[in-house]
Amino acid sequence: MNFKTLLPVAALVALPTMGFAQEDAAPGFDEIGPYIMTTLLFLVGGFLVFWMAAGFAMLEAGLVRQKNVTMQLTKNIALFSIASIMYWLVGFNLMYPGDFNGYFAFNFVPTSLEPVGLGAEDAALDYASVGSDFFFQLMFVAATASIVSGALAERIKLWPFLVFVIILTGFMYPITGSWQWGGGWLSEMGFSDFAGSTIVHSVGGWAALAGAIVLGPRLGKYKDGKVNPMPGSNLALATLGTFILWLGWFGFNGGSQLAAGTVGDITDVSRIFANTNMAAASGAVAALILTQVMYGKVDLTMVLNGALAGLVSITAEPLAPSLFMSLVTGAIGGVIVVLTVPMLDRMKIDDVVGAIPVHLFAGIWGTLAVAFYTGNWGAQITGIIAYAVFTFVISFIVFTILKGVMGLRVSEEVEMSGLDVGELGMEAYPDFVAKG
Amino acid sequence: MNFKTLLPVAALVALPTMGFAQEDAAPGFDEIGPYIMTTLLFLVGGFLVFWMAAGFAMLEAGLVRQKNVTMQLTKNIALFSIASIMYWLVGFNLMYPGDFNGYFAFNFVPTSLEPVGLGAEDAALDYASVGSDFFFQLMFVAATASIVSGALAERIKLWPFLVFVIILTGFMYPITGSWQWGGGWLSEMGFSDFAGSTIVHSVGGWAALAGAIVLGPRLGKYKDGKVNPMPGSNLALATLGTFILWLGWFGFNGGSQLAAGTVGDITDVSRIFANTNMAAASGAVAALILTQVMYGKVDLTMVLNGALAGLVSITAEPLAPSLFMSLVTGAIGGVIVVLTVPMLDRMKIDDVVGAIPVHLFAGIWGTLAVAFYTGNWGAQITGIIAYAVFTFVISFIVFTILKGVMGLRVSEEVEMSGLDVGELGMEAYPDFVAKG
Amino acid sequence: MNFKTLLPVAALVALPTMGFAQEDAAPGFDEIGPYIMTTLLFLVGGFLVFWMAAGFAMLEAGLVRQKNVTMQLTKNIALFSIASIMYWLVGFNLMYPGDFNGYFAFNFVPTSLEPVGLGAEDAALDYASVGSDFFFQLMFVAATASIVSGALAERIKLWPFLVFVIILTGFMYPITGSWQWGGGWLSEMGFSDFAGSTIVHSVGGWAALAGAIVLGPRLGKYKDGKVNPMPGSNLALATLGTFILWLGWFGFNGGSQLAAGTVGDITDVSRIFANTNMAAASGAVAALILTQVMYGKVDLTMVLNGALAGLVSITAEPLAPSLFMSLVTGAIGGVIVVLTVPMLDRMKIDDVVGAIPVHLFAGIWGTLAVAFYTGNWGAQITGIIAYAVFTFVISFIVFTILKGVMGLRVSEEVEMSGLDVGELGMEAYPDFVAKG
Repeated sequence: MNFKTLLPVAALVALPTMGFAQEDAAPGFDEIGPYIMTTLLFLVGGFLVFWMAAGFAMLEAGLVRQKNVTMQLTKNIALFSIASIMYWLVGFNLMYPGDFNGYFAFNFVPTSLEPVGLGAEDAALDYASVGSDFFFQLMFVAATASIVSGALAERIKLWPFLVFVIILTGFMYPITGSWQWGGGWLSEMGFSDFAGSTIVHSVGGWAALAGAIVLGPRLGKYKDGKVNPMPGSNLALATLGTFILWLGWFGFNGGSQLAAGTVGDITDVSRIFANTNMAAASGAVAALILTQVMYGKVDLTMVLNGALAGLVSITAEPLAPSLFMSLVTGAIGGVIVVLTVPMLDRMKIDDVVGAIPVHLFAGIWGTLAVAFYTGNWGAQITGIIAYAVFTFVISFIVFTILKGVMGLRVSEEVEMSGLDVGELGMEAYPDFVAKG
Repeated sequence: MNFKTLLPVAALVALPTMGFAQEDAAPGFDEIGPYIMTTLLFLVGGFLVFWMAAGFAMLEAGLVRQKNVTMQLTKNIALFSIASIMYWLVGFNLMYPGDFNGYFAFNFVPTSLEPVGLGAEDAALDYASVGSDFFFQLMFVAATASIVSGALAERIKLWPFLVFVIILTGFMYPITGSWQWGGGWLSEMGFSDFAGSTIVHSVGGWAALAGAIVLGPRLGKYKDGKVNPMPGSNLALATLGTFILWLGWFGFNGGSQLAAGTVGDITDVSRIFANTNMAAASGAVAALILTQVMYGKVDLTMVLNGALAGLVSITAEPLAPSLFMSLVTGAIGGVIVVLTVPMLDRMKIDDVVGAIPVHLFAGIWGTLAVAFYTGNWGAQITGIIAYAVFTFVISFIVFTILKGVMGLRVSEEVEMSGLDVGELGMEAYPDFVAKG
Repeated sequence: MNFKTLLPVAALVALPTMGFAQEDAAPGFDEIGPYIMTTLLFLVGGFLVFWMAAGFAMLEAGLVRQKNVTMQLTKNIALFSIASIMYWLVGFNLMYPGDFNGYFAFNFVPTSLEPVGLGAEDAALDYASVGSDFFFQLMFVAATASIVSGALAERIKLWPFLVFVIILTGFMYPITGSWQWGGGWLSEMGFSDFAGSTIVHSVGGWAALAGAIVLGPRLGKYKDGKVNPMPGSNLALATLGTFILWLGWFGFNGGSQLAAGTVGDITDVSRIFANTNMAAASGAVAALILTQVMYGKVDLTMVLNGALAGLVSITAEPLAPSLFMSLVTGAIGGVIVVLTVPMLDRMKIDDVVGAIPVHLFAGIWGTLAVAFYTGNWGAQITGIIAYAVFTFVISFIVFTILKGVMGLRVSEEVEMSGLDVGELGMEAYPDFVAKG
């Protein structure tokens, strides 16, 4: 399409609209404005959530040891790409089947977009374009898979991990997603999870937990009854990743308003932005203070995870709370992370980047907290348990099968020398002298 | 909130509006369009300025030595989080009190947002939502604090720095901000500072200068009458940080148009984008050429700071100039940086990242340059002096008190071994072999 | 401009509009809405494409050896800045001259923006503001120059490279751009290149190829009939750069719809977003699978380049294809990269980052593929050849002249010790111990 030479064409296309508008016949902005604004919300929200894929990649690359960085990067770009394909191939229509039994939709069709140059009369003027909706939703499933990749780092083989990603993003996430966002049984029951503390984050966390148990901890992590710290190799990247995730979360929560074309909706979106930021800030500050008090010095990785836990906590209900209640919600998320990271270590569950405390535990907290606004504790607890049971059990089974069929874990030699050289033959920082 | 199941609800909500629109009774897009667009401007502008927090973090992490990177990252995420809380707690309402004496508003109330689902009849249809306005303004105060953190790096203790951030973001910045943007005495006088060359950048610079003087230079920086260069440890991160800041600046300056819902406003926003980019580009090119001429080789850190100085320079008036005048304004900013970085060193003022030349000196230049358009030299000079005196004096007093009460500076041992290990017990790059 | 004190002014400004709207006299949203939305599309699209400059910088900094990182960063920020100035000075008006002979416009005038506070009656209501259009287009020329910088890394001197950038961005790119996007002879012929697979990416690739031939390969790259691998020094940065480019590409392709104010246009933009993402994902997956099959292990740099090649491939026509056809188009791009990187090495053409396979070869593929939709194979092939001949020949001549006049290549000593120390006297990672 030409740039400036398009002008005459654009004028021709625009003319009828403008003409009709003057005749009060064709749709004017009062009718199409909300559609345009909501579609724009999904596009901007969608690219912000896309950006979270880079955030997870940088966070994880920063928190693994130098010898496993190339592998972690490879997993992150591969999982995002696979999620994009699987969600198109089956996921989106499994998750949003329209009328269905509420538990599982036999709706295995790839996603189709609207035709080029859609007319206003054929558009869902009370919502947004399918293309923007698909684009936005797709980014959420990728986030779920990213959560798993961080927890299982430094020991899982590439291909079995990617097979799990195929199953998670094509089937598991869409099926459980349909229960609520697809209008299924949990939605009927009154369960509430605005942007996915449970549906996205806890689901990723449960899958990560199952994988961590099946895989077992890294060699030498728990030895002679002691926890052997294995510090991340690049805290600058980890911090960058956290800032990226924080930025992307404005799209994650703000876009989940699903409408932007009325005064009420755009004002709600701005309320969500402000609340989301507050919860992240208070999660970080809570971890800052708590690590100072508990350990006598601030722990940057806890502060980063505190911010992320604040974000996960507010995700189930970023609209209803006041700024003060958002601060409280996020701060509790930060506290949860500081307290549960060592707890997992005591249980010898080795979660390399802290994904389970951040996404699972803070996700449960955030989902429960919604009941303070809805009053429906039963629905919230039912939802939390339903996602837990389905995701944990199926993930456990899938990881166990993968372990038997393909082998899940790299050899001891490869794990000691690092997955980068052992599995991929490529160092992430080949010109730098490494320790040890 | 459900995703697709929300559709029926959305339809119900939308119906009255659409119905009314057909009856010409309820507000149509001619009335609500500007509010929606300006709110959107603040949200998009706000997330871009949020992103600058990551930019400062990366720039500073790249320009400090390896042994102080974790600390610099910690300060950056902590200061942003604290600024978010303080600006909510008191800052925003101190800065925008409505009617007040013009100097100081006794208006110590936390920020409240509009209720969920605001009706058009209750909205400030000639402006934007409070939530979006608060979100946008909040990001500016964080930028001010980031400026301080860079200049004082590698020697200031974490907690006294954070106490200063509390005072700066909760009180100092909002009070002086109210003089102009809150409709106070400088605004009455005709002072002009479109997006904050003085109000944001010079304020940060004056606070940084006071801190640098109270703290003193890093050990070994000025020895035997010579300036001992202490090069930044990661120029890739510093460059990334500069690109992030450049990107964020489109939101910083563009959003400061404070309106986007008319042909004039959106066209002005685009003019601001183009001018802002031009000033950054010319600041970089000026530093590129000048360092080649003066030193016989190009200095990347000067080029980066030249781009940033160009951005600061255009910030006081990014709308009025032509592209050519933006080029000139930015280029002078770039020249200022190249000439004043060594000047500060001759005065033994140790500014680790060049924050004072970039934000203070270029900020003064940019603020002065506005008088070429307004003709009101008196107001510009008065404003510059007023912000200088208040911020420098109060900052000096606060830093001096903190020095007496908490101690401002780490011990010599900690400074030599690095703040990462000494204060935080955590290296940024633990797997990499470091020099020295 | 004051922030909150602006409110009364804003109200005054807004009043007439709103008054007129009620009188049905002044332009309402039905008339100005499309202009506002398209201008916004260019601003958002523009800042996303700006962000690609950071993406190229990180990708290239990650793929060169440690000793050349400062130089690569310097080239990237300098080339963007120079492109910004040259495109303003002559490029934009050379490329979009209005009526002209179709081959070359003698239209050497700098770009002027609309006056401040443009009235609706003076605006191009069927398009967008000049400022936003210029801002958006400017980002494309910078991308072209970035492509060249990657291929010629690690051996070309800074200043001759920047002189080439001046010629490329001020003259070569705008002249050939005018053939199509300026309404010239290729546009008349029915050539189609939606967002620039050829006009931007192949042009960059042809210039890179000419430069690589004139410069010759790096010392030791092809020795004793063997290809000596010189792995990139920081794959985390390279991956970050790829994610940045992927993100920016939504603006690159989406913004090239050049309209966003109707149901059809915004729906098309969302279709473009979804297709663009799909092509990147399938390019990455194709390279993932192919490197596993061909080499027995996955090659991360190929996966990154596969994603980029997918993006380049879909750029010539991101709107017409279905999601499935986008998957096919992108996957072929990924395959092309995996197969042609070793081919170039066999020809002893040393392209440091794989820019020629990604931008030139995948660009040709993407441009050819458009004919499946338009049927006009002749126009597509003519366009590909025209851009090839002009850009390669002129680039070859310019590089040859630069070689004679300024010297194009650093000395052997500088190349061996690295351009950072040799040319700039500044290491990118001075605190880290380097190998070798």
